[in-house]
Amino acid sequence: MESRRQFITRTAAVVAAAPFISTRVTRALAANDRPRLGWALCGLGGLSEKQIAPALLKTERSRLAGIITDTPEKAKKWQAQYNIPDRSVYTYDTMSKMAHNKDIDVVYIVTPNALHAEQTIAAAKAGKHVYCEKPMEVSVERSQQMIDACKAANRKLGVAYRCQFDPLHQECIRLARSKELGDLRLIDAAFNINIGGPGQWRLTRALSGGGALMDVGIYALQAARYLSGEEPVLVTALEQKTDPVRFAEVDQSMLWQMRFPSGVLANCSSSYDSGVGAYCRVSTQRGWFGMDPAFFYNGNRGRRSDGKDLAAPEIDLFAAQMDDFSRCIQENAPSKVSGEEGLRDVKIMMAIYEAAKTGRAVTLT
Amino acid sequence: MESRRQFITRTAAVVAAAPFISTRVTRALAANDRPRLGWALCGLGGLSEKQIAPALLKTERSRLAGIITDTPEKAKKWQAQYNIPDRSVYTYDTMSKMAHNKDIDVVYIVTPNALHAEQTIAAAKAGKHVYCEKPMEVSVERSQQMIDACKAANRKLGVAYRCQFDPLHQECIRLARSKELGDLRLIDAAFNINIGGPGQWRLTRALSGGGALMDVGIYALQAARYLSGEEPVLVTALEQKTDPVRFAEVDQSMLWQMRFPSGVLANCSSSYDSGVGAYCRVSTQRGWFGMDPAFFYNGNRGRRSDGKDLAAPEIDLFAAQMDDFSRCIQENAPSKVSGEEGLRDVKIMMAIYEAAKTGRAVTLT
Repeated sequence: MESRRQFITRTAAVVAAAPFISTRVTRALAANDRPRLGWALCGLGGLSEKQIAPALLKTERSRLAGIITDTPEKAKKWQAQYNIPDRSVYTYDTMSKMAHNKDIDVVYIVTPNALHAEQTIAAAKAGKHVYCEKPMEVSVERSQQMIDACKAANRKLGVAYRCQFDPLHQECIRLARSKELGDLRLIDAAFNINIGGPGQWRLTRALSGGGALMDVGIYALQAARYLSGEEPVLVTALEQKTDPVRFAEVDQSMLWQMRFPSGVLANCSSSYDSGVGAYCRVSTQRGWFGMDPAFFYNGNRGRRSDGKDLAAPEIDLFAAQMDDFSRCIQENAPSKVSGEEGLRDVKIMMAIYEAAKTGRAVTLT
Repeated sequence: MESRRQFITRTAAVVAAAPFISTRVTRALAANDRPRLGWALCGLGGLSEKQIAPALLKTERSRLAGIITDTPEKAKKWQAQYNIPDRSVYTYDTMSKMAHNKDIDVVYIVTPNALHAEQTIAAAKAGKHVYCEKPMEVSVERSQQMIDACKAANRKLGVAYRCQFDPLHQECIRLARSKELGDLRLIDAAFNINIGGPGQWRLTRALSGGGALMDVGIYALQAARYLSGEEPVLVTALEQKTDPVRFAEVDQSMLWQMRFPSGVLANCSSSYDSGVGAYCRVSTQRGWFGMDPAFFYNGNRGRRSDGKDLAAPEIDLFAAQMDDFSRCIQENAPSKVSGEEGLRDVKIMMAIYEAAKTGRAVTLT
């Protein structure tokens, strides 16, 4: 007969392989038995408050263990709401003291892009693994510094590409790889939003490093990469700025095209000054498939040209990505959203900016 | 009391203003009373056989009056099927003799692209108006020659942009102009097909002048132009050829981007080596609208982000465009699908080829 340990290991494996069909029973057993890693959130803005902290109430391998903020009122509110002890509350300046806090295993960086490197390096030096919001940083150099710091500290680094954990995106990747509809030909991917009024860090280059492309275009870029399963070798781009006041420092809209080695082409767009549109469509040899919307927290919808079902269970993407990173730490397994993966996007985005600036195709090596 | 003439004029005006609500009664009255122009089809391939000739049985201002073909068997078959007298049957070489045929008012050129100029010029010299399949021709020079020849002969020249007569496209244009969803921002438009095996004229540069862009990309180009209501000032492009045998002479796939003066950007694609995809999506300040499919003979579907109805009656687009051209001749009114309109697309397509070839943005003047 199966021992309890064996049963848990077996069901935990099932959960890891197909978390969406896990029952309440296996989940409860797994959750009770498996140690949870302590996550500290660095930056308590809207994303932390509305998505990440609530998700940490659903995670199985991760729990909210600490906060890093320069706003004392926020710290108080969060401590009360999530029962966080004083010893696990830090400011950006005192992050290095986390080294002595055994409750915290991972720091999730949820601050403006241009602070990521400094905070990642501080967390790594304090012996913590780092999970970082996208884009990873504002330059190739700073992204590389993050990778180097985590490597030197023997800590893992992950980038919060939540769509890679969306079962619908995974189903599209499966469909692409299986070639059920033939070889891939063209990928259209777009993420357009209205960023809202001035005064926010995303419109300030020193903090964001860029506009629509860095913030939402990155989803389209990621999708083109993981759907094709390839790295682009050439990009062309076209930038648009009709509101040079609001978008004095960052790109308002960016269109770009990519060529992949197999011959797949991608046509992508991103905007900070548009009604919301987030979609993706893959033309293949014998048809097409796609998602519209594609990049939302939930409610994404799939379609394929042959009318077959292109659906997948909806899960909490924030919970899924954090638990996956915890799993990678626990099992010392590589993360599919590693620092190197984040760096690839930053490199390509810099080439897109260059192509837009020069009006010339830029070759990627 | 209203005289019969007054009644017909009034109802005919209603029919012209809103042809889709015309009743059988008004249609019959209008058709009986109004002289129909005689159309001769030059080139009896699939499009003539399956779309244009059947449409000429539904037209109110146009009727099939003659044929021009170098294939005697086709001539015989068509004469029998459509009751065409011997005197209205020509070969490409005898077209000039049409000058004496009062039954023929318009020649509809439905031959390979590189024959359009020669045949248009012959028809114009014979005193006939010319309606020509798109693309108008294979070069700017030859397109200009067509315009010049028709002008010199005081005949009208039209290009068969049937989508401009699609009530769904017209509704999208209305929506764009009305700014119900705000200013336009980005236009995505694509027409991808699988052109099939070798041996056809469309894959032979000497006859087609180009591939996917010239044949199907032109729909996306047109849509971007009439939806924005502007002319592009800059293009970038990316070509792809993974099958250099089948596509030895023409473009297999072409992606291109356009910048319009107001700031609207367009992201377009066309392919000869893809499952069928024909769609269009316009991102606006406060939402989006689009068509998928967008460019089919029928069955096109509209959607808008606010969930409101984006539908329009389905009509025979070939009948609509021919009757409109007949109307322009009868009323000596300008056609919205004039030779100049056709030339604009040819100019832009040449710039797209140049941008793809050089990897540089091309400015349009």
